[in-house]
Amino acid sequence: MMELARRVAEAADLVTVALDELLPRGEGPEGRLTEAMRYAALGPGKRLRTFFALETGRMFELDERPVLRSACALECIHAYSLVHDDLPCMDDDDVRRGRPTVHKAYDEATAVLAGDALQTAAFEILAHPDTHSDGAIRAELVARLAHASGARGMAGGQMIDILGVRDDLGGVARMQRLKTGALIACAFELPLVLARAKEAERHALMAFAHDLGLAYQIVDDLLDAEGDAHAMGKAARKDAEKGKANFVTLLGVDAARERLGLLADQTKSHLDPFGNRADFLRASVDFVLERRQ
Amino acid sequence: MMELARRVAEAADLVTVALDELLPRGEGPEGRLTEAMRYAALGPGKRLRTFFALETGRMFELDERPVLRSACALECIHAYSLVHDDLPCMDDDDVRRGRPTVHKAYDEATAVLAGDALQTAAFEILAHPDTHSDGAIRAELVARLAHASGARGMAGGQMIDILGVRDDLGGVARMQRLKTGALIACAFELPLVLARAKEAERHALMAFAHDLGLAYQIVDDLLDAEGDAHAMGKAARKDAEKGKANFVTLLGVDAARERLGLLADQTKSHLDPFGNRADFLRASVDFVLERRQ
Repeated sequence: MMELARRVAEAADLVTVALDELLPRGEGPEGRLTEAMRYAALGPGKRLRTFFALETGRMFELDERPVLRSACALECIHAYSLVHDDLPCMDDDDVRRGRPTVHKAYDEATAVLAGDALQTAAFEILAHPDTHSDGAIRAELVARLAHASGARGMAGGQMIDILGVRDDLGGVARMQRLKTGALIACAFELPLVLARAKEAERHALMAFAHDLGLAYQIVDDLLDAEGDAHAMGKAARKDAEKGKANFVTLLGVDAARERLGLLADQTKSHLDPFGNRADFLRASVDFVLERRQ
Repeated sequence: MMELARRVAEAADLVTVALDELLPRGEGPEGRLTEAMRYAALGPGKRLRTFFALETGRMFELDERPVLRSACALECIHAYSLVHDDLPCMDDDDVRRGRPTVHKAYDEATAVLAGDALQTAAFEILAHPDTHSDGAIRAELVARLAHASGARGMAGGQMIDILGVRDDLGGVARMQRLKTGALIACAFELPLVLARAKEAERHALMAFAHDLGLAYQIVDDLLDAEGDAHAMGKAARKDAEKGKANFVTLLGVDAARERLGLLADQTKSHLDPFGNRADFLRASVDFVLERRQ
């Protein structure tokens, strides 16, 4: 696990340096916008999506650059979604990762625009010839990321979350699959596109990604119920206070923990076809389960 | 001009039907999101970007489908920008094209998400194999649209507009070039990509596009100063009331009109290399100049 922690930290450093180079820099009066984009995308973060993408790339022995640029695009989408989710009209959060949220550090209008332009940047990065020499691959990366983040993915999930229309496990699971699951799965999907992977490999890895995303969310809900705000760098117990159903409010802490244990084994089993090439991805399941923030 | 008006109306119908087919339809609780996206993108509108794209496609004798799908993407970006610009934290507008704005018809959170997902839809449409058989072309369409609409284009221009940092013609012109000019230019740029046009043709048509965008904005500012709210379907005299500088507040109505006349001739002259293949684009300059809303 020490080696894994090192690789997670290394992935975070790599993507932050790459993003710093790829994100536009402010010139002229619109500098406030590019500053806010950088504040949102270059701040502290676990960068788990990047770690997943890089490890998948290694499993398929891909060149690092296309995978790293794909990870940059994923992080731009993730960052944009956090900026918009934190807005007063959405979750109304003042603190994110121990720092003021973008609309607090800047203002609401700048936060809306910074989120907008971060989304645009994601697609601009993927479509650029530096991402891959084959245009069909670049276009497919764009298509997959767009599908994962649009109305039938992340944005749709956020709509369900805001409406609060879920009072059973099925509803919570569907919301999770769209809101956070789709983008986590995309961290595996983009390298699969780059690898021109076979259907069987794709199916196995996507099954892994979906279970991993579900496990990630259950841990999130457990941390929300038990965690303290200081360790998490954001407000805790938000769902219970807002009367929002999640895996833990519906199952209770003990049953949620039990389900998580079963899910961990199932998640790892999807990696069997990859043998020991998947050792780091396998270990990352425990890493996700044991995270404290 | 009768024939031109017919072609403009026809283009609007074509893109509305195509968008209706391409935009996601609500299933499940996220239906509110897809409804709001449709409300924003399928409502009444001049669809000038579509008209420009289709006429450019005809000039290069392109198949209609790739051009129409490009126009759909442009309209998605345009619609998203209007939804977000209308938000209370931005321009705070209640009425757009004679109807309640999205955050009035729905709510702010839904409006933020609908704008977000419309942006995503634009790139999903362009990246789809139905747009063009050549992946490199699809990726280039994505790259051009992203550049035009991101921090160094439309979003950057909106940031400048919000900050109000402009007190001379140069500042107003730069704001216009980014905020509205970049996306109008893109309506010509995408068909140029599809046509694999020669550099000289691209330069001529982009010069036309930039001057046309400038003319469009001066007309907009004149309408804002003179127009009545009823005819425009939105509030008039907004810039003057908010103390925002624009071409007309800086030049005055007469000088702005004079400048517009000179600009019209210059704009048309860029089309000389295309001969009578460009007749409809040439006529569209007068159409833009004579618009009353």
